[in-house]
Amino acid sequence: MNFRLILRYIGYIVLMEGAFMIPAMLISLFCDERASWVAFLAAIILSVVIGFFLSRLRADDTMHAREGFATVALGWIVLSFFGALPFFFSGAIPSFIDCWFETVSGFTTTGASILPEVESLSYGLLYWRCFTHWLGGMGVLVFVMAVIPLAKGSGNTYQLMRAESPGPSVGKLTPTIRSMSRRLYEIYVAMTLLEILLLLAGEMPLFEAVTHSFATAGTGGFSVKNLSIGAYDSAYLQLVIAVFMALFGVNFGVYYLLLTRQFRAVWKNEEVRVYGLIMLGATLLIGINILPQYENGGRAFLDSFFQVSSIMTTTGFSTANFDMWPELSRFLLVVLMLVGACASSTGGGIKVSRLIILFKHLKNEMGAMLRPHSVRSVRVDGKKTDNGVVRATTAFLVAYVFICVISMGLVALDNFSQETTVTAVLACLNNIGPGLDLVGPMGNFSSFSGFSKFILSLDMLFGRLEIFPMLFLFTPAAWKKAKRPRKNRMMGTLE
Amino acid sequence: MNFRLILRYIGYIVLMEGAFMIPAMLISLFCDERASWVAFLAAIILSVVIGFFLSRLRADDTMHAREGFATVALGWIVLSFFGALPFFFSGAIPSFIDCWFETVSGFTTTGASILPEVESLSYGLLYWRCFTHWLGGMGVLVFVMAVIPLAKGSGNTYQLMRAESPGPSVGKLTPTIRSMSRRLYEIYVAMTLLEILLLLAGEMPLFEAVTHSFATAGTGGFSVKNLSIGAYDSAYLQLVIAVFMALFGVNFGVYYLLLTRQFRAVWKNEEVRVYGLIMLGATLLIGINILPQYENGGRAFLDSFFQVSSIMTTTGFSTANFDMWPELSRFLLVVLMLVGACASSTGGGIKVSRLIILFKHLKNEMGAMLRPHSVRSVRVDGKKTDNGVVRATTAFLVAYVFICVISMGLVALDNFSQETTVTAVLACLNNIGPGLDLVGPMGNFSSFSGFSKFILSLDMLFGRLEIFPMLFLFTPAAWKKAKRPRKNRMMGTLE
Repeated sequence: MNFRLILRYIGYIVLMEGAFMIPAMLISLFCDERASWVAFLAAIILSVVIGFFLSRLRADDTMHAREGFATVALGWIVLSFFGALPFFFSGAIPSFIDCWFETVSGFTTTGASILPEVESLSYGLLYWRCFTHWLGGMGVLVFVMAVIPLAKGSGNTYQLMRAESPGPSVGKLTPTIRSMSRRLYEIYVAMTLLEILLLLAGEMPLFEAVTHSFATAGTGGFSVKNLSIGAYDSAYLQLVIAVFMALFGVNFGVYYLLLTRQFRAVWKNEEVRVYGLIMLGATLLIGINILPQYENGGRAFLDSFFQVSSIMTTTGFSTANFDMWPELSRFLLVVLMLVGACASSTGGGIKVSRLIILFKHLKNEMGAMLRPHSVRSVRVDGKKTDNGVVRATTAFLVAYVFICVISMGLVALDNFSQETTVTAVLACLNNIGPGLDLVGPMGNFSSFSGFSKFILSLDMLFGRLEIFPMLFLFTPAAWKKAKRPRKNRMMGTLE
Repeated sequence: MNFRLILRYIGYIVLMEGAFMIPAMLISLFCDERASWVAFLAAIILSVVIGFFLSRLRADDTMHAREGFATVALGWIVLSFFGALPFFFSGAIPSFIDCWFETVSGFTTTGASILPEVESLSYGLLYWRCFTHWLGGMGVLVFVMAVIPLAKGSGNTYQLMRAESPGPSVGKLTPTIRSMSRRLYEIYVAMTLLEILLLLAGEMPLFEAVTHSFATAGTGGFSVKNLSIGAYDSAYLQLVIAVFMALFGVNFGVYYLLLTRQFRAVWKNEEVRVYGLIMLGATLLIGINILPQYENGGRAFLDSFFQVSSIMTTTGFSTANFDMWPELSRFLLVVLMLVGACASSTGGGIKVSRLIILFKHLKNEMGAMLRPHSVRSVRVDGKKTDNGVVRATTAFLVAYVFICVISMGLVALDNFSQETTVTAVLACLNNIGPGLDLVGPMGNFSSFSGFSKFILSLDMLFGRLEIFPMLFLFTPAAWKKAKRPRKNRMMGTLE
């Protein structure tokens, strides 16, 4: 393993993080929040010094798959560590494990919180908390690769994007990958700005419009209000946020196609169609199921749509306490937690495209059992899928179930209800935020032990990085020095 | 689809079932239970007449995979229908859906009951209820094939065993498959007799020894006592049953190998080793976890072993109310529900061998991500596994998750707690019996609606037949007349 190269990339990440803390510090300075701006200043100095030092490391510049995995996994861990410093230095969150949990939750766009209430936090910290969502949503290494010119760009970019990007496959690599990742960031920024404007039009104050837009864009879920989006009476504001959550859960490739006027390719996209259908179906089912609890039918369907969009895109905002809904609705929400959003969106979960692949795989195998001599392959968007994609997807499902079970077992040591234990892990692993019971939309994660908080924070990282890069850190192969490829000596002898 | 052939096999099944009701009728006659023996008599007459009529149907005698699937799925449904008649005719269980639920639960070796108490049932019905476990455990079609000489034996036997036998694959077909299936039944009978003798030695009355041995052998879980095995104070009796549950959860191929003195092959069997290790590990973990609730340490570990063995082999007997145990133990038991027993045992669940294959598949894919050009294959017991087995296993996992989610959604309509809903489905789909909360070891399934009982009974059939034969019934292909294989006309033209 080429540790020096990995450290160099981590250096870039930390440097960039230090720079991104400056706006938060300025907000705290402007609002005269002494403890916060001093904390930010200290964190910035630390990040810049350490980041600068690491980014100067000399190393062999070729990145293999293993270094890509390790850079992404370790990069996110270090990112979260430095991101937690302002909370810790300012004393706003006294215990470091809580600061860590909150920051991991931010960067991974989970939105699970250990804070019983947030309105007492300083503006600088509130801004930083929501900004972590925005940065984490699109991917930090994708960002680094998009803005920093590096020597051997294309190959390394591929390894890093492969490891960091959500979804079963990045697709064929084009020489324009760097320019494309820059274009995706432009779309991201433009959509965020649009949401801010629409929220301002609904008379949401500027600070709240910006922070909520950050949290929506990253499909994160941190709010600056104790009641989350339920704090706003306006159906307009709730609808805008619900729609934007749904939009940020769409495969960003689709927006790219729309911009480049490839409408047929958009229409052919199975994932987006299935995503839309699931969202519509769940909204209707839950709306009908909760209708008896509401006086106003429109309100029931708005609440249903908001919660479905929030959970399925793994954002985690809430306008209603869905823990009080009938069991069918609660169960459907848990299923939507698993489903998640589209690949290459900012959302988490298993992803709709994976489910499509798995479902078609099942159909194929049923066919193969009945007609053993027929050869079939999984077709997505009308194109034959590489067999490797199907294998990787089934392996993902296995790893997913495996990590669920281990995490739930460890969190069960806290001896809370099974619903709390199970949904806490699902809410973290799928980067959603709220679960049911103790961790429901009106609850929080503060009652867990430090050990459970640590496990849950790992789950968030597993979820955001789609399991494999993190899982790689737990294999012995990750901690060995790389062997040079052996020359085939036998061939020489035979000649 | 060759429906006549399917109906003929179903005829054999029903005939055989009628014959097997005779002992139950004699018991009722002997005990002077009028309502019961009349009910059995009526059921026997119906079965024999209809079975005889169907078994005389003339049909093309070649069985393809689709007919194998359909015969097994429909055969089990018809079997359960006729098996439910004595309960219904005698009036012991007034509603037919309850009779159906109880009988499906019996044949599928689930052991989930809608009866709040069983000691008021007649001896004949108690005997029949436990005997369904014994018959269902080893497979009814395997039995039919083992005892009834049929014209085109070997090919048809293969299709039927493939569809009915538990586990990822039946293995290579040998010409001696019929004699082997007879040998397996001999082992099954011998082990059942041995358990009866050991229970008698512990002073269990004959009737209880026989019925409990039937329920253990089939890994079913119906007891003739309201308190299940908790009704016996004797640690000896509990230990005998716990050990026999564990033994009946072992791959029967192992006993065959032991009898034919192939000890090395037994030693090499990974599934049995992993099965033993999981059981040992879970017993220790749960034993330690529940220790504070017990005064006597030995008692804690005996209860732990009994429950682990009962749940993992999917039997479902209980000696303690594990619903009151700490959350870690409850969660581990739910995990064991999923794991299940060995392939080709009488136990249910996902099966240890499938987990081994899935786990190795994950490991392979991790390797492939890091070294894309390496070729690997899954090796079980030191032998390379067919790629098709891995694909079928991952498809099984997908179908399993899919059926879980659909069933839980439908059962959630009853609006019970999430724990009740989720564990009820898991307990039925894995053929265990008790779950947690309302359906815990001290509860029963009587509070569910008729609709939920029907869904849960389908889950039991899905679980016992390992999903695919039942899933096949839900595809349009199952209800079409078979097309003859098309001759390749293009080839002719080209020549």
